[in-house]
Amino acid sequence: MRASRFLIATLKETPSDAVVVSHQLMLRAGMTRKLASGLYNWLPLGLRVLRKVEAIVREEMDAAGAQEVLMPVVQPAELWQESGRWEQYGGELLRVKDRHTNDFCLGPTHEEVITDIIRSEINSYKQLPANFYQIQTKFRDETRPRFGVMRAREFLMKDAYSFHASFDSLQSTYDEMHQAYCNIFDRIGLDYRPVLADTGSIGGSASHEFHVLAASGEDDIAFSSESDYAANVELAEALAPVGERPAAGAAMAEVDTPDQRTIDEVAAFLQLDPSQTVKTLVVMGEANDEGEQKLVALILRGDHELNEIKAEKLPGVASPLAFAPEARIQAEFGAAPGSLGPVGVSEAIEVIVDRSAAVLADFCCGANKDGVHLTNVNWERDIALGRIEDLRNVQVNDPSPCGNGVIDIKRGIEVGHIFQLGTKYSEAMNATILDENGKQKPMVMGCYGIGVSRIVAAAIEQNHDDKGIIWPAAIAPFQVALIPINLHKSEAVAENCEALYAELTAAGIDVIYMDEPKARLGVMLADTDLMGIPHRVVVGDRGLEGGTVEYKNRREADKQDVSVDDIVSLLRTQLIG
Amino acid sequence: MRASRFLIATLKETPSDAVVVSHQLMLRAGMTRKLASGLYNWLPLGLRVLRKVEAIVREEMDAAGAQEVLMPVVQPAELWQESGRWEQYGGELLRVKDRHTNDFCLGPTHEEVITDIIRSEINSYKQLPANFYQIQTKFRDETRPRFGVMRAREFLMKDAYSFHASFDSLQSTYDEMHQAYCNIFDRIGLDYRPVLADTGSIGGSASHEFHVLAASGEDDIAFSSESDYAANVELAEALAPVGERPAAGAAMAEVDTPDQRTIDEVAAFLQLDPSQTVKTLVVMGEANDEGEQKLVALILRGDHELNEIKAEKLPGVASPLAFAPEARIQAEFGAAPGSLGPVGVSEAIEVIVDRSAAVLADFCCGANKDGVHLTNVNWERDIALGRIEDLRNVQVNDPSPCGNGVIDIKRGIEVGHIFQLGTKYSEAMNATILDENGKQKPMVMGCYGIGVSRIVAAAIEQNHDDKGIIWPAAIAPFQVALIPINLHKSEAVAENCEALYAELTAAGIDVIYMDEPKARLGVMLADTDLMGIPHRVVVGDRGLEGGTVEYKNRREADKQDVSVDDIVSLLRTQLIG
Repeated sequence: MRASRFLIATLKETPSDAVVVSHQLMLRAGMTRKLASGLYNWLPLGLRVLRKVEAIVREEMDAAGAQEVLMPVVQPAELWQESGRWEQYGGELLRVKDRHTNDFCLGPTHEEVITDIIRSEINSYKQLPANFYQIQTKFRDETRPRFGVMRAREFLMKDAYSFHASFDSLQSTYDEMHQAYCNIFDRIGLDYRPVLADTGSIGGSASHEFHVLAASGEDDIAFSSESDYAANVELAEALAPVGERPAAGAAMAEVDTPDQRTIDEVAAFLQLDPSQTVKTLVVMGEANDEGEQKLVALILRGDHELNEIKAEKLPGVASPLAFAPEARIQAEFGAAPGSLGPVGVSEAIEVIVDRSAAVLADFCCGANKDGVHLTNVNWERDIALGRIEDLRNVQVNDPSPCGNGVIDIKRGIEVGHIFQLGTKYSEAMNATILDENGKQKPMVMGCYGIGVSRIVAAAIEQNHDDKGIIWPAAIAPFQVALIPINLHKSEAVAENCEALYAELTAAGIDVIYMDEPKARLGVMLADTDLMGIPHRVVVGDRGLEGGTVEYKNRREADKQDVSVDDIVSLLRTQLIG
Repeated sequence: MRASRFLIATLKETPSDAVVVSHQLMLRAGMTRKLASGLYNWLPLGLRVLRKVEAIVREEMDAAGAQEVLMPVVQPAELWQESGRWEQYGGELLRVKDRHTNDFCLGPTHEEVITDIIRSEINSYKQLPANFYQIQTKFRDETRPRFGVMRAREFLMKDAYSFHASFDSLQSTYDEMHQAYCNIFDRIGLDYRPVLADTGSIGGSASHEFHVLAASGEDDIAFSSESDYAANVELAEALAPVGERPAAGAAMAEVDTPDQRTIDEVAAFLQLDPSQTVKTLVVMGEANDEGEQKLVALILRGDHELNEIKAEKLPGVASPLAFAPEARIQAEFGAAPGSLGPVGVSEAIEVIVDRSAAVLADFCCGANKDGVHLTNVNWERDIALGRIEDLRNVQVNDPSPCGNGVIDIKRGIEVGHIFQLGTKYSEAMNATILDENGKQKPMVMGCYGIGVSRIVAAAIEQNHDDKGIIWPAAIAPFQVALIPINLHKSEAVAENCEALYAELTAAGIDVIYMDEPKARLGVMLADTDLMGIPHRVVVGDRGLEGGTVEYKNRREADKQDVSVDDIVSLLRTQLIG
């Protein structure tokens, strides 16, 4: 590609609304431009990267035996009503009416549509297993789109859906998809981890996420120091502490805490470690048949964080998790948040105690009187200990749930997610097959997503320096930048550049030839570094006099003079080796 | 591809809601499935064709120097308000509100978005010309989607937009795009014609459509019998008849036509040829500053058809064309449609006479009294002849507007459309550059569309027989069908098929190997014919005993026995030659 025929849209300044480095660099390198909140245009440079990622994903999905299909962006409401998600799915599902005022949505995912297709086309176990994928535009109306294409509203996704006659068959395809995903991220050249994950609103039984490790990641991933165990903190089990609860000490006592509302303030005031306190979080219970919801008090150690995903999965707790309104807390506890505790609460309120809070002795908690706390509280002695559950996020140095080593936590960017859906959708939508015995049964399903556009941003988060992007070779928009010095003055430079450009292009190498006659060398070097081109060849009269050009690898500091005759073979070696 | 791993979803019956042959065959061959009105899923077979068309389009656009970008489906209302189309564009523009109740639309086209991008990125004539394209999902909320993917609501389109410092530069890129489109349709293997076209709601000065000729086409294309002239009938000029108007004969007279309302009924009753009558069509005039609209009477020969596109372009006529309400006609003419005519109409009504109607003598028209017509009416003698315009569609045997030969009319399916937009969008949206003299001026624009998904249907309209589709080689989903006889019984058949499959695949030939062990030969032959696979190889024990397999070309009736050793080289020759 000649730069004179290519939109190079680099920016010197970092746009002020770009927070994470990938967003900043995608804008600065001229890869994308914001159209509106969460909506991005892909300029030619960015699209070249996106298409390379897409091609790798397609090749590996094909190699794994998945069949490509294409389903519409706009989906009829009827199918979502059939699955129950028209009501369940929140505001991210953008609902629209067509000119005949029929209801549709912009597809955030395609379980309903593919299940609708397959229930018509497949009716025998003999036609299974089958796995269908598409690489297609999705829309999720995020409340707060952010980080550029990392969390956009419209984005490019590869989604696949597999259908099976048995759970064994699902497991086998699930394993193949797990491997295909590893192949994809290996080929792209990312430092990633498959981790155990929650199934979320998609539903189903087992699930893995694929995370690119990066400090800017929005997810916390828990790793074992001693094993392969890795799980999203959302899911990672916090084991019950080993050993017995210590014996109770001094008698429970009230203490005035008129100005202390947070755990840290109370602990400091009472000269306690926060781990000797408990906090009480009040959430809504599951609605009964009359639609009434009890309150549920969740009791955690003061230094621990509530895991909302774990909490909302508990029987008796509303899902999605909803914190109780303050007025109702005041009415039923007799105190405001900040002075709540498990002692003496009404029987109308269910109390659930976290495993770690359940082994405390002589702890401090709110007294259910505004501005008053209780000290030296003890389970069984002062207050019955009822239901105990795992309510909290794991922390660094917790014992690993795999039984080996302790937990370390790193940040990750989720770029892939695979699920064992089971029969959730096939049952709701009556997608059945005849089995070997001629009996109707629901198909078993899996689903497998990759955020194609998000991968581009994640790759940058992992591969950049103060000059700009450093692309992994497989997804670089161009592999080589060919840069002339004084093109408008030197015939020798022009001739050598044209010859090299022709030879490299003929060898199938993607070259950007910076052929604007009067472009300044410093600008071209800065631009091609910012754009992250892995290899750079500078052609100038001084070198040509000795028969050489200057080569530099974007990842290395050193330049080297290379004979004009050898540069093509050097680049070929670099690009293949 | 092995059929056992590929969704073959052929149907024996033609779905009752499919009218045109391409829609019927796409459903029957298992290429697409309807999701909702105007929304189609592409199954694996159909998507293979779509992707091949897409690849050809992309290659030719790249070769023509266009740069690929990707813009969102969802577009903010602000840009459409800036161009004025938020109000002008009708119900096809699906307007949506996001969760924050901001206005957006689903993009039916992307002039506004690309102009918004380019006005920020390009500010000097030195950066021009530049041409950007995308292959992207469009949505147009058609009132009456029909003919499957031919006129769907969601579809895949290639749209390109070029930017220039001058009209000369636009013309040059326009010519290049014209050639690129010819290359695309040549490579796909379609019988098509570039034709002069109306610019429609997109706006601009010059325009060509690319039509695939097929009886099911929705457009009429006028060709000259003697030259290269071809134009959409919407646009083709109807020349004024040569020669003088005949002299007036008998005196004008009233005649009662109590039960005759149509031209044909009146002509039959009066024993006249319809070409000796005129009809009067009443449409709304352009609104004046107060928003008032006069009536306009359009006078055409009884056997001629009104060309609405020509009419709505005339000064004084409302655009889009709107027929006058009957109550208002009754009030201002004193008669209902069916008895209207140009004689004695109020001066408040503008009368526009078609060129052919203007040379009639002794003609018949309505008398502006219900149930009464006038005979022997003559211009100038009985009624002043004022404004004369070209109001009608050309007809077969009309003189060609190019000056050579006469008009022939064929049906066409519009698969491409190129426009010289000029400065319509750049002026409305303030997309300017500095020219050579440092002066700000609006960029000159062109735009270039191809209906990628529609091409698939158009190719079938032109290439099918009673057995099914007959794909042009370049876009066939598979090039070769490999069909075993008694696969489950014969080891020799299995071995030879596996060897052939491996060899053909290694040669880069797309093969569908019908490897379901117990599939019936007749079904496999019918399915692969229906799916339109260009080449077929049948492998059976009887042939293998003599060392042969059976080869058949989908376009030919004859089969031939070919040596097992020669079949691969025969296929290579067929596919390359």
